[in-house]
Amino acid sequence: MKAVAEVSIIPIGEGPSISKYVKKAINIFKKYNLKVVPNAMGTVLEGDLDEILKAYKEAHLSVLSEVDRVVSQIKVDQRKDKENSIERKLKSIGVE
Amino acid sequence: MKAVAEVSIIPIGEGPSISKYVKKAINIFKKYNLKVVPNAMGTVLEGDLDEILKAYKEAHLSVLSEVDRVVSQIKVDQRKDKENSIERKLKSIGVE
Amino acid sequence: MKAVAEVSIIPIGEGPSISKYVKKAINIFKKYNLKVVPNAMGTVLEGDLDEILKAYKEAHLSVLSEVDRVVSQIKVDQRKDKENSIERKLKSIGVE
Amino acid sequence: MKAVAEVSIIPIGEGPSISKYVKKAINIFKKYNLKVVPNAMGTVLEGDLDEILKAYKEAHLSVLSEVDRVVSQIKVDQRKDKENSIERKLKSIGVE
Repeated sequence: MKAVAEVSIIPIGEGPSISKYVKKAINIFKKYNLKVVPNAMGTVLEGDLDEILKAYKEAHLSVLSEVDRVVSQIKVDQRKDKENSIERKLKSIGVE
Repeated sequence: MKAVAEVSIIPIGEGPSISKYVKKAINIFKKYNLKVVPNAMGTVLEGDLDEILKAYKEAHLSVLSEVDRVVSQIKVDQRKDKENSIERKLKSIGVE
Repeated sequence: MKAVAEVSIIPIGEGPSISKYVKKAINIFKKYNLKVVPNAMGTVLEGDLDEILKAYKEAHLSVLSEVDRVVSQIKVDQRKDKENSIERKLKSIGVE
Repeated sequence: MKAVAEVSIIPIGEGPSISKYVKKAINIFKKYNLKVVPNAMGTVLEGDLDEILKAYKEAHLSVLSEVDRVVSQIKVDQRKDKENSIERKLKSIGVE
């Protein structure tokens, strides 16, 4: 059963520009067997829950290895009554 | 100074399908002077902070008017050192 | 109808220690007609939705006035079937 | 290096009262080697990152086993420059 999730990772104390770390995290997500769709406030992931959590943990620790403090967040949406996918979710709200 | 934000609104107790309410919220966001970009886990908004908070409040209350309970969330990113926009944020992480 | 909410405000780029800004935000919340309960990851607020959103906006802008970038977040829980309060929510999960 | 995190788990479509599921999640957290501090909007956890992520995953799946859809969230704060603990974080903002 697939999950859809959104991750954001914020390095604190490294100056206001954090895109370098966001790009690093996205590259880590892409190594996993996941659909990876970045947006302006986070990155949406689709795939197996275990895979998603492993990718999240690696990205969090990878950013933390370069800075003093990280606050990261993951939100997971999982359902049993229907297939859960980025594509189906977007279709259901009229976005193609 | 523009803000970029992401909103998600979850009606609780109305069954697992909530796209009807998400569509309602998106239509409310579009009445405001905001850039509105839905994704699979929320909707990204760009514009004036007051306008964003008004749109969020109206969408939250509008969904609540139809259901017994709502849990909604907004995350706001605002900066003074550079222009903050969805387009600039996406460019900075290599997404066009 | 009261709402229960949780706010977190993160200044980015000011070094890893952000307690000074968190204290500032809490002092702003206390000026409003709200119940204010800080925890280790955010501050829980109880009161009128308008009051909560005004307090959130003032705290967000107040921290932003001192730093270059702020990412803040508010989650609002509101229900119509029962009184919604911090006390009732804690009782319902067995925390007194 | 310890992490401090906050988890919230929302079952969707099971009616507006979700305290039964929140209690279930808290009981799962308590089986792990973690400090567990529930508040009105989530549960704060302190401990090893791996332990926290395992506890989060078990609680998420346990609630999902009883309902059709779950949206859960975890926010993780981890730092290298100072010991990170619930107690130290509360002290730094003047809450004892």
